[in-house]
Amino acid sequence: MSQREFDRTLADMASGERSMTAPERRRFLKGGLALAGAAVASTASADTRFAPPEVPPWTKSLGAGVGVNPYGSPSPHEAHVVRRTVDWLTADNIASISFTPLADLKGIITPSGVVFERYHAGVPEVHPDQHRLMIHGLVDRPLVLSMDDLMRFPSVSVIRFLECPANGGMEWRGAQMDRLQFTHGMLSCCEWTGVLLSTLLEEVGLKKDAAWILAEGADGAHMSRSIPMDKALDDAMLVYAQNGEMLRPEQGYPLRLINPGWEGNTCVKWLRRLEIGDKPWHHREETSKYTDLLADGTSREFSYEQECNSVVTSPCPEKPFKTKGKYMIEGLAWSGRGRIKHVDISVDGGANWREARFTSEIMPKALTRFALEWDWDGSPALIQSRAVDETGYVQPTYRQLREARGTNSIYHKNAIHTWKLSPNGTVSNVQFA
Amino acid sequence: MSQREFDRTLADMASGERSMTAPERRRFLKGGLALAGAAVASTASADTRFAPPEVPPWTKSLGAGVGVNPYGSPSPHEAHVVRRTVDWLTADNIASISFTPLADLKGIITPSGVVFERYHAGVPEVHPDQHRLMIHGLVDRPLVLSMDDLMRFPSVSVIRFLECPANGGMEWRGAQMDRLQFTHGMLSCCEWTGVLLSTLLEEVGLKKDAAWILAEGADGAHMSRSIPMDKALDDAMLVYAQNGEMLRPEQGYPLRLINPGWEGNTCVKWLRRLEIGDKPWHHREETSKYTDLLADGTSREFSYEQECNSVVTSPCPEKPFKTKGKYMIEGLAWSGRGRIKHVDISVDGGANWREARFTSEIMPKALTRFALEWDWDGSPALIQSRAVDETGYVQPTYRQLREARGTNSIYHKNAIHTWKLSPNGTVSNVQFA
Repeated sequence: MSQREFDRTLADMASGERSMTAPERRRFLKGGLALAGAAVASTASADTRFAPPEVPPWTKSLGAGVGVNPYGSPSPHEAHVVRRTVDWLTADNIASISFTPLADLKGIITPSGVVFERYHAGVPEVHPDQHRLMIHGLVDRPLVLSMDDLMRFPSVSVIRFLECPANGGMEWRGAQMDRLQFTHGMLSCCEWTGVLLSTLLEEVGLKKDAAWILAEGADGAHMSRSIPMDKALDDAMLVYAQNGEMLRPEQGYPLRLINPGWEGNTCVKWLRRLEIGDKPWHHREETSKYTDLLADGTSREFSYEQECNSVVTSPCPEKPFKTKGKYMIEGLAWSGRGRIKHVDISVDGGANWREARFTSEIMPKALTRFALEWDWDGSPALIQSRAVDETGYVQPTYRQLREARGTNSIYHKNAIHTWKLSPNGTVSNVQFA
Repeated sequence: MSQREFDRTLADMASGERSMTAPERRRFLKGGLALAGAAVASTASADTRFAPPEVPPWTKSLGAGVGVNPYGSPSPHEAHVVRRTVDWLTADNIASISFTPLADLKGIITPSGVVFERYHAGVPEVHPDQHRLMIHGLVDRPLVLSMDDLMRFPSVSVIRFLECPANGGMEWRGAQMDRLQFTHGMLSCCEWTGVLLSTLLEEVGLKKDAAWILAEGADGAHMSRSIPMDKALDDAMLVYAQNGEMLRPEQGYPLRLINPGWEGNTCVKWLRRLEIGDKPWHHREETSKYTDLLADGTSREFSYEQECNSVVTSPCPEKPFKTKGKYMIEGLAWSGRGRIKHVDISVDGGANWREARFTSEIMPKALTRFALEWDWDGSPALIQSRAVDETGYVQPTYRQLREARGTNSIYHKNAIHTWKLSPNGTVSNVQFA
């Protein structure tokens, strides 16, 4: 679905011509919500003290003025929307993970404050005036660049997802985390601004045998990964801004590599060195880690691409249903290979599927939001989503994924996910089919 | 330029085929930057103590781990990127304006923390569980909805700009503010998620004479505006989320109206009431304010649309040039009528124009970023941008705008803006042509 198709969808929704007919829409509230009768009445939620025409206390007083919060924050009522960690997952919090609260997010942009974290030696406090990027190795003109230098090059801004390849890794062998935040929360989508790596490679000039690039971070772990030249010359970027402002410290301030659609670990943060070589380096984070051990004892190394994936974000364990009636089943789909083309939803564990509608902008290698209206009669259900990307790749079942890759790896788990909805409306994580 | 055209631009930039030839790119650093010689060398910025191969102190220590900042913040080095106010502009800060720091922003998304503010009675502390929206008047089934009710309706997410119609209003009669933040900073662009107003109007059922809607806020000012039915049935939305998370308090938490492309004042915050009627209400904020007094003494009322506009964001007073040499002249363009089609840049006060390239996603009624390479020889310059939208509307000069509208109004100033670049690299705000 292209941008123009999304624009048409918006227009169709406004005129009631797509996915829901006007009579269906008019009945939307009749299913589960206690509804207005002949006159103005209040609805399902209990606390109606300040429902119009009553005037609430906050309307009878003056609020805080401009300049009180020069850099604003969310409402105190949203204090639960934060990154969360899992204590038992790693030995130490400086080489660990925090998870994005996907259940409470809307649209496709992940607020910078809750983008998941993954560190190998904590967050270095890099001084932007003293930070330098060195580009050397098989080049004609090695360079050391300051941030001021970098920001004089032509820049681009794109909206792209970023995902840790270990996202959902605990589920490979059957662990079943109890929150969407933990099953899929090593995932985010931001606007990134920076310089195409290809622009800088032209500046330094590549020697004949240049085929790989080592990207190294300025953190205490010297996090480093080998990047093949094809990706470097395609869409890899050196980014200094995220969601309109300079990178957050935990996202690599002041400079990181972004390889759109590739595993987050390759998107080296606090980037200080790019070495051009003729072969990969086989450093720690691409051999003992971030390599996929298969069932036959061999390994997939340099398994960079985050393949097509999706998950239902409502309902989910954090967002149970309260009563029977009409709901939108909502979720997110993404693919490291390009645009999402199609998403189907099942409520019976994959026996039957219905096509979902896209409800956000659709961009390549970006989160894409989908939704489908569903009238829940209170029966138990097994809710799944299955995404297809523009290359035709179909998100696999667990069975298909395990047949192809075994269960040794914790990386690149993109199997169809199942939420079990109980008659009381609670939602749990099960593996099915 | 469509989404696919932007994708092609990205590909062309990667292969060096658009706007800049490869030889031009390779020479990029030669103009103004003190450059690497035969070996690795450092650049223009003075403080090179920790340039590679030196290892900086932050690489020799462990940083803070995950979970330390469950909701993150910008780097302390970016503490200058904040909303700012102008003391003399209004009598009180509860009915005033703060400005977005456009000079320091990248891409097109405005971080929620620095989106400009405009209050008429300060920020009410609305409790989301107690907040209700009443829809009544010329409808078949009046309703009072809780936030839970609203969030069960089909939702959409779109990226759209939001601008106060008084943006630049001080410039109408020749005042010349000394920062980009003050000349154009009542401007932002966010992803907005919510329910199309048309969906709710179908739910309540419009009576035959329904032609206008009064939108009223829950703030102490009961801020209210009359919205014609055509807009309500087109793309008006009731939004509860902004940039992926629930609205910030200062942006209308938990619910606001967004009329894409229309003046920000119509996008009523803390929305509590929609009354359907057969004619407009002529309330205070659409008569004594937000109406444009013309030169002949008559007024333009209900002048909703934010017409095509643009501004150069680098260089600008906050972002002077440091030395001669190659730079990207960068800026933002937007139109309340749809997509930006074309932007030209002049460095001689409008005598000659060159076409800029787009460097961001291009979406209807959204900020669009443009750039053009320029080799500055140190001469004084008058830098301007001129945008054209997809309807063919061309951004006017001050002369054209004043001929059409006089100088009585402070609203809808979208004239071509001029920055004067001095030989020492400083930039000032002048009116020219």
